[in-house]
Order: sequence, then C-alpha cells, then structure tokens
Amino acid sequence: MNIYEEALKLHKKYRGKLEINVKVPCDTNEDLALAYTPGVGAVCLEIEKDKENAYIYTNKGNTIGVISDGSAVLGLGNIGAQAALPVMEGKALLMKKFANLDAIPLCINTNDVEEIIRVCKLLEPNLAGINLEDISAPRCIEIERRLIQEMNIPVFHDDQHGTAIVVLATLINCLKLINKKPKECKVVISGTGAAGNSTIRMLYNYGFTNIYAFDRNGLLSNKKLDKYDKYKKELLNYVNLDNKEYNSLKEGLVKADIFIGVSAKGLVDIDMVKSMNEKNVVLALANPEPEISYDDAKKAGAFIVGTGRSDRPNQVNNLLAFPGLLRGALNARATKITEEMKIASSIAIASLINEEELNTDYVIASPLDKRVVERVSKAVEEVAL
Amino acid sequence: MNIYEEALKLHKKYRGKLEINVKVPCDTNEDLALAYTPGVGAVCLEIEKDKENAYIYTNKGNTIGVISDGSAVLGLGNIGAQAALPVMEGKALLMKKFANLDAIPLCINTNDVEEIIRVCKLLEPNLAGINLEDISAPRCIEIERRLIQEMNIPVFHDDQHGTAIVVLATLINCLKLINKKPKECKVVISGTGAAGNSTIRMLYNYGFTNIYAFDRNGLLSNKKLDKYDKYKKELLNYVNLDNKEYNSLKEGLVKADIFIGVSAKGLVDIDMVKSMNEKNVVLALANPEPEISYDDAKKAGAFIVGTGRSDRPNQVNNLLAFPGLLRGALNARATKITEEMKIASSIAIASLINEEELNTDYVIASPLDKRVVERVSKAVEEVAL
Repeated sequence: MNIYEEALKLHKKYRGKLEINVKVPCDTNEDLALAYTPGVGAVCLEIEKDKENAYIYTNKGNTIGVISDGSAVLGLGNIGAQAALPVMEGKALLMKKFANLDAIPLCINTNDVEEIIRVCKLLEPNLAGINLEDISAPRCIEIERRLIQEMNIPVFHDDQHGTAIVVLATLINCLKLINKKPKECKVVISGTGAAGNSTIRMLYNYGFTNIYAFDRNGLLSNKKLDKYDKYKKELLNYVNLDNKEYNSLKEGLVKADIFIGVSAKGLVDIDMVKSMNEKNVVLALANPEPEISYDDAKKAGAFIVGTGRSDRPNQVNNLLAFPGLLRGALNARATKITEEMKIASSIAIASLINEEELNTDYVIASPLDKRVVERVSKAVEEVAL
Repeated sequence: MNIYEEALKLHKKYRGKLEINVKVPCDTNEDLALAYTPGVGAVCLEIEKDKENAYIYTNKGNTIGVISDGSAVLGLGNIGAQAALPVMEGKALLMKKFANLDAIPLCINTNDVEEIIRVCKLLEPNLAGINLEDISAPRCIEIERRLIQEMNIPVFHDDQHGTAIVVLATLINCLKLINKKPKECKVVISGTGAAGNSTIRMLYNYGFTNIYAFDRNGLLSNKKLDKYDKYKKELLNYVNLDNKEYNSLKEGLVKADIFIGVSAKGLVDIDMVKSMNEKNVVLALANPEPEISYDDAKKAGAFIVGTGRSDRPNQVNNLLAFPGLLRGALNARATKITEEMKIASSIAIASLINEEELNTDYVIASPLDKRVVERVSKAVEEVAL
C-alpha cells in the first residue's frame, strides 16, 4: 500500500481527525445545573457586562478558526471548500498537537473576498485568532490585511508568513556559515505569490537589501508596472532597487549568494547553481517537488541546500513557526501579529541550533524538535508585551 | 456559595467547557505524512470527485453547528452574540454527552436575518446539521424555514421544536390517564412565540383539533388579523377553529382539559385551575418560574402537573428530544427534519414509561434516563429511512 492509499484508509477508519470533547464534569443534575441552565446564566451576564470576560469564562481564548475557501490547496489548486476540509482538519490537528490550541476547521463556500471577510468578522465572538489557509493570491493578501484592520484578534495567513519566518530563520543560520551580513548577499527569489510576497518583505526588514524577484513574466522591474496588481507594485519598494535588467532567472542567479524558490518544480538546473557565488545557499521550497532537488543542487556544488522535504537535510517547514507564534500571540492576548513578532519567531527558531551543532546539513531544526513551540511562543510573547 | 457563584467558579477554572481533540495517531513523521501532507492530498481529491465522500473521510458527518445571535438567551433576552457563548458551549456539551455529536458553538455577531442565513449556508461544508438556538421570534422561524429550504443538511431550532416534541410526549401519556382522545380535549396554550408556535402545529398534526391560543393581546382570533405577522396568521389554521370569543386566558381555561404555558411566570392562578375540567393537565413551562407553580397547581386540584423544573415531578425538558433526534437524523443521513420525525420522537419518548409505571407524577421520563437517546434516535432513523 502506498502513502496515499494508507492516508485514505486512516481517514476512513477514524472518519476525520478531530473531535469535540467536554472538559468539565457533566454526569449529574447538579453538574448540568452549573455547566448549563440555570448556572450558566450568571456567566452570560458577566460577559454581557464586559465582553473581555469571555476570555475568562469560555473557550474563546484558546480557539483558532482555521479558515479557507479551498482556492489554493497544497499542490492541488482550486479544489473548493468541501475538498479542502481534510487539510484544515490536519492544520487543526497540528495546532492541538504542537501548541495545545483548539482549532476549528471552517471551510467557507465562496471565493468572494467580501463574503469571506464578513464571515470571519461575524464569527469573532467564538475565536481568539484566525489562521487563514490555502486561499489563492492576491486575494489572500487582501483578505488578511482587511481582517487585521477590522478585527480585534490576531489574524495570520500561514502560507504567506509561515514560510517567510522559517526561510529567515534558515538564512540567519546560513549567514553564520557563509560569514556574510544580510546586506552583502545577493538574494534571488523565484515566486511572488503568497509565500514569496511575505518572504521578500521579511528579508528586507531584516536587512537584506539586495533582492531580485522573478515571477512568470521574469524579473520584477519598474519597467513592467502596467502588468502588476497593487501588491506586486508594492514589492518594488523591496526588490531590484538598483534597476537591474536580467532577462531570465538564469541571468539573475549569476553571482547570487542565496536562491529562494517558492514557485514550481524544475525551474533551476545544475548549471544555474554552478553560476552562483561560492558558499551559496539554495532553498528550493516548491512542494512536493522542489525547483531543484537536494541531490542535484549538492552535485552542482551548492554549499547549503534546503528543501521542503522531510527525507533530506534542512527541511524548511512552516510547522516550525505557526504553532509557537499563535500560542505566543494568544498567551500575550495580542490583537495583531506584527512584523516584530514574526522576526522574533525567526530568531528564536534559528537559536535552536548552537554554534557547535551548526553545519551545512543542519541549519534549521526539525519540526518535531520538542523545544520549538516553547522557544517561539516565549519570544513572541516578550515582543508582544 | 450559591449556584451562580459555583457556576462562575467552574467556568473560570476550566476556561470554558469544550476542547478540540485529535483522534488519529500523530506522533511521528510517518503519522503526519498520512494525517497531513502529502497523504491528505489523496483524501482531498476523493472529495473533489464527489463531495459526499466528506462524510467518509472527514468529521463533517458528526458535526453540528450550534448557531445563535444571542437575541433570546434563556431567560436573559437579547444579550448579544458574545454573552451567548457559554450557553452554546453548554448546548454542545449536552450534544456530546448525550448523543456523541461533535458540536461547534458558533455565535454570529449580527441580528440581520439575511446575514445569519448566509453565514450558515457558507459554512455547510463543515457541518452535518445545524441547531439554531436562542434566536428571537419571529426571526427564528424565518431563519429556520429558509435554511431548511436552502441547505442540504438537517436544520433544527430547538427552542421551537424541542419543547413541542416533549410536550406532545407528555400529553400522549397524560391521555392514557385521563382516558380521552386528542380531539376530545379542549387545549389552551398561553404563548405563541418560538415554542408555542411549534407546539400548536405538532399538537394539531397529532389530532388535537380543539386548541385555543393566547398571546399578549388575548385570544388568537380571526377578528384580530390586522395585528398579526404572517406566522401568527398561519396559526389560525390550527387554533380557535370554531371562532370562540374568550376575553381572557381566565375565560378560556373554563372547562379546559389541558393547559400549556410557554409564556411567563404567574399568568395562571389557583381559581383558574379550579375552573378547568376534572382530570385536567397543567403544563406550566415558563422558565425558571412557571405560569403557576407545581405546588399551587396541585393545591388547586390539578390532576397532572408538569413544569420545566428538575426539583418537581414531570419535568418537561427538551434535553429529552434534541440529542436523539439529531443523532437519528445524522445516522439516517436525512437532509431535513420532518414533522413525522418529530412526532416519532414524541411517541418514542412517551414509550419509555410503561403502563405499570405510569402515574400522575410520572408521565414523562427523566432527561438523564439512559435509554432516551437510543430510543429516540432509532425511531427517527426508521421514519427517515
């Protein structure tokens, strides 16, 4: 049986991955009189007096809505809200397992941006935070920005920032091995979707000022402004600041120090890696098949290689980021996830590997490292408070 | 410490009453590869092929949305969505405890009928059924009807039908003791809100054709048509079919066999009960204080008395109905809750008391009777299939 058959069997056996359980006594009439009527009336009145009391008397304070319209699911694309549900249950599973968060899968049966925003806002009484998931770009950026502005709870789009946080964490450790400062590195990014967009911003905010980004139409450049939506236009504040004119990703990679792929498989070949600087870093993160495989990149002489795969060293996996980040934000009762909290997460993740352990095949900790969530959540909490 | 202080303490200690748990193995990389990526992709594709597969591979098939806008909560009135959350958590607790349903509290932060309807419909991919709760009349009737028409999953408003089902169950047993047929009974109902509306319809459909209903403006009558909304106008097909002209509830109760109160405390006095027929039935269900107390009704000579209180005999509690009814509907994969399923629930609940046990202080089983849910769910399943 292959992994897909096994997965189907597992899901069928358990009929999904989550269940709702009761955490208070409820066996006797007396129990029910406290948990339900008439006792619960007193609890309602406390919350009516001050809505903040919902954090004391209900599960709101530990509840995350995992929200998707199913428009950009894993490698599967726009499969719709119903077919996205197993992924959202999986995400909720990870939140519980890694950060003891109670996450509710909420697949929303529309692709309309305004409707998705409205549903999230109307459900705020139940939630301490929102994790947007697998919503196609650029709609995901619009939805996240609007919700951040219009809601009083943290809103986080993992596909954008989860990857960005772990990429930065990886690079923080890579810099120690290649012995360069951020501003000394030529960085080339392939892909300007959800993950690319946030990665560019975070790297820039951390000090990488020499970034070139490529999308399907080639290099991001002021000369192509008429082709760009507002989000891509914004990126020109962070990339290609010296107005280079590379005609292809291949041209761009010449003498680059760092390649980050958040695009599609096979876009990078051995010769392209060979044209990069010595002591280069190749993070080929397209999933499940990277822009260039770990083995090919190594064959081409890459100094440090990371991919999204768990069967090779240096797995860049956003599971390192979101559980701790959300846990920390909720612990601090933060109302927003800020850029500072994200960068603090990256630094915390990088710090899991000490100087003696650090080597080209161990620049990023394992997502199963038991220390991750506590380290990240504490860092985020400190910044938030 | 009184019950309200104890309830606050309990809620504070546990921070709410529910939690989300993981029901599949998820400790190793191999586990995660099945429950999450890449294995989950195969599950998504099966559901993309046929949405019905969500019932096989996800928790949708066991998940109930407990939906409220907080506009008519218990005895508290319109306290808003946030303050209603403890009640919805309590309702979800009961669903789990009594019928092993995974219920998600979803308080919706609007009173707009169209918005509530829209949110429910957009969340359908996650849910096997909807339990509407504590929404004020007549909006609750409009919302329920529209959702029943427009959704493919069962929608049930407990405040309407839960009470009605248990009232009918109680009366089925009362009839055996007073030795009358439904059409031989003069029935007087005080209250035409959510519970009153559904009770009138169910009793009529069961064969009670001699019903008189009273609201704040007195007897429901064709002469007051201009005062009625469309729901109250509809009720005139079921009540006061011989166009009586009682000037008050007091007048109406003279020679009545059955009184059903779903209105407000203190509306019935001892003299009014005395004016009823011999072998009369008084179900005074206003909560927490009934239209007339059990003790006063007995003092007035009432033959059978039921209230909503657990500290007196014959507690008419909708906990007898909704867990089994929803369990049965989900087991049968019914797409609607029909009148036949509700009546079958009443008959099943009544059947829990056998001929030898039946007496004036035991006409309705205890909500904690372990047999209730199975008996009701089987009856509903049979009707549905």
